[in-house]
Amino acid sequence: MSEITVKGSQAKESAKVLALLSTAEKNNALMKIAELLETKAEEILSENAVDLQKGKEKNISPSLLDRLSLSKERIKAMADGVREVVDLPDPIGVIKDTFHRPNGLVIEKIQVPLGVIGMIYEARPNVTVDASVLAFKTGNAIILRGSSSALNSNKAIVKVIHEALEEVGVPQNAVQLLEDTNHDSVTEFIRCNEYIDVLIPRGGKNLIENVLNNATVPVLKTGVGNCHVYIDKDAKPDMAKEIVINSKTHRPSVCNAAETLLLHKDYPYGEEIINALLEQGVILHVCEDTLKRYPDLKEKEGVQPATEEDWPTEYLDMEMAVKTVDSLEEALLHIDTYGTNHTECIVTENTDTAETFLKRVDAAAVNHNASTRFTDGFEYGFGAEIGISTQKTHARGPMGLPELTSYKFLVHGTGQIRK
Amino acid sequence: MSEITVKGSQAKESAKVLALLSTAEKNNALMKIAELLETKAEEILSENAVDLQKGKEKNISPSLLDRLSLSKERIKAMADGVREVVDLPDPIGVIKDTFHRPNGLVIEKIQVPLGVIGMIYEARPNVTVDASVLAFKTGNAIILRGSSSALNSNKAIVKVIHEALEEVGVPQNAVQLLEDTNHDSVTEFIRCNEYIDVLIPRGGKNLIENVLNNATVPVLKTGVGNCHVYIDKDAKPDMAKEIVINSKTHRPSVCNAAETLLLHKDYPYGEEIINALLEQGVILHVCEDTLKRYPDLKEKEGVQPATEEDWPTEYLDMEMAVKTVDSLEEALLHIDTYGTNHTECIVTENTDTAETFLKRVDAAAVNHNASTRFTDGFEYGFGAEIGISTQKTHARGPMGLPELTSYKFLVHGTGQIRK
Repeated sequence: MSEITVKGSQAKESAKVLALLSTAEKNNALMKIAELLETKAEEILSENAVDLQKGKEKNISPSLLDRLSLSKERIKAMADGVREVVDLPDPIGVIKDTFHRPNGLVIEKIQVPLGVIGMIYEARPNVTVDASVLAFKTGNAIILRGSSSALNSNKAIVKVIHEALEEVGVPQNAVQLLEDTNHDSVTEFIRCNEYIDVLIPRGGKNLIENVLNNATVPVLKTGVGNCHVYIDKDAKPDMAKEIVINSKTHRPSVCNAAETLLLHKDYPYGEEIINALLEQGVILHVCEDTLKRYPDLKEKEGVQPATEEDWPTEYLDMEMAVKTVDSLEEALLHIDTYGTNHTECIVTENTDTAETFLKRVDAAAVNHNASTRFTDGFEYGFGAEIGISTQKTHARGPMGLPELTSYKFLVHGTGQIRK
Repeated sequence: MSEITVKGSQAKESAKVLALLSTAEKNNALMKIAELLETKAEEILSENAVDLQKGKEKNISPSLLDRLSLSKERIKAMADGVREVVDLPDPIGVIKDTFHRPNGLVIEKIQVPLGVIGMIYEARPNVTVDASVLAFKTGNAIILRGSSSALNSNKAIVKVIHEALEEVGVPQNAVQLLEDTNHDSVTEFIRCNEYIDVLIPRGGKNLIENVLNNATVPVLKTGVGNCHVYIDKDAKPDMAKEIVINSKTHRPSVCNAAETLLLHKDYPYGEEIINALLEQGVILHVCEDTLKRYPDLKEKEGVQPATEEDWPTEYLDMEMAVKTVDSLEEALLHIDTYGTNHTECIVTENTDTAETFLKRVDAAAVNHNASTRFTDGFEYGFGAEIGISTQKTHARGPMGLPELTSYKFLVHGTGQIRK
């Protein structure tokens, strides 16, 4: 039997127990996880050091090394994150609706766990904790499939979670880590419908596309965000500049960072926004029309002519594409063509224009006069999230605890049969 | 360009228009569809006759011929079904939640269409109408892929729908039928993520498994129902008998019909239920233990010893498996092993036993003292459904109008940026 068959069946069994735990039992286990993460931080850090050493030997990039790297402070932040999940309301067992039928049937729609979640992710070890505790709080078992570069860190973290679960008498199989990180095992994992109810991939475009193209287990697609900020002709100058700068530079490496600036041809202060971006050190890929309008730009450092390849590009860095559009219609068409249904923003004082944009853009979040960076579970007031969904089935946008649930109908009868 | 690329891109374009139609505009179009179905019934019937003739030449089974066959009455019923959808509330544009954030952002969660629905189904031409109007009422475009045996009927129905849409000025591309019914085109269809947002397969086990194993577009799994009725030791005799008979014989060919009877060993009237089923003409596949308990059974017509193969079988006919279980635990384990998460029923007067069953069974519907046949959109009071979901993501159980929607977040700001 493969590792996936063994761990899958164990996860499925443990899910039956998890589904019946009370909120108090789950919170008690979570508090123990938070405690042991802190008291056993040294053990985690020494295994993390092994991963970092191996990463250096393999010459992985400094930014990847940084994402892989743990510290006492980062572990403390992970433990605090767990305690925040304790404070979130437990969606499981909530009756969402009750229907009283003329024949006397009473039908309750009750929130239940999804079952077993398969999580596929890249190098950040904090995802190991975040995903485990969000799944656990919602009564789901989870099977984690991290990258080989973080294997020792992930094993150390899962060991601590197992110790915590054992101390409070909860099945350790609730949280499992796949240790076989070769490519074939991923394929087996994402086609294991017998034991896995839903897959959540979190990582780069290639990882997500591989899962989407090959999985038979239902996938909750997360992440890829080619987000636009459209500055309408009726935008307020200072607001427009601030929102563009914030959307692009506040944290360029994440999915809700903006990648393309669309400027209405009649917006008079486009050059100021462009200069402000250049001052922040943003490299700009500028369309021909814009370069014609502002001839000084060509001379400036950091300005390059845009090509067709720039429009679909998610730079995830201090780079941005810039395009002048003739109308709201052209902006909408550009977003339709190149957007990834994540977050799209308009800046305008014209409420009719804003309303058209809000209605017609097909994305998880459509923002009027607000930075794209707000698409986030904490910013929405939902608390920790397992990812941002960019698909339309099941959940869209920030996926927190309620999005990790399903429901079932309890039909209470007194002997009713169908006529 | 393939038929799917052409019709897919047209559907995607029309979906933009559909998403913005008012409820009145949609209902107006639906009323016109209902009207033209009736006034143009002859045209549909003459094309249906072509399909029936071809079916007879190919020696398709009488039950399949019956499902394929239309009549004035059946077309009238289809038109009435459309009018019922007019009366259902329109979920599109409903604000499901509003969040006022401390920074002044107002975030609205608003219900929107899924976009383009891909529907794959077998011979019943009425599905062509049902699916089209449910999709249309929820602002979705739909691409229909019926079976070759119903192609002429489906073309005639879609022609009528197109005429109705044209009369009221709605894009005809809202409803499209794939006319290429060869196998390769299915594969292209279910992997066409560029134009299709969700797939709904409706039909037999093979059709659904083919879609699940090969699709890259998200799938809403419907249908397969290996449903059980468990008669507890504390069941009321008359009620138990009535519920079993109704669950099995009321309409044996559908997914919410029961397939296995589980009898608690201490329930004293098991033989009466078995005899009642035999009297109704149900063929029974009976486990060894049950045959030992009731030695007379062996002699009776319609009784066969059960084999391991009977437990996972969905007969969809006047056949049923019968098994004696030692306990509620054994019943739960059997359902866990062989059930398909559709509908499971317990008959008992013991509320503790019922509660355990309701809590622990993992199915779309868990019924206490009520026939399995109630898992149905109309019986729940939801109205017409596009199928019964047996998966846990997106929707579970009867899928009506709300289940054909997604949502997006409208973020209303006054210049907020993220600190």
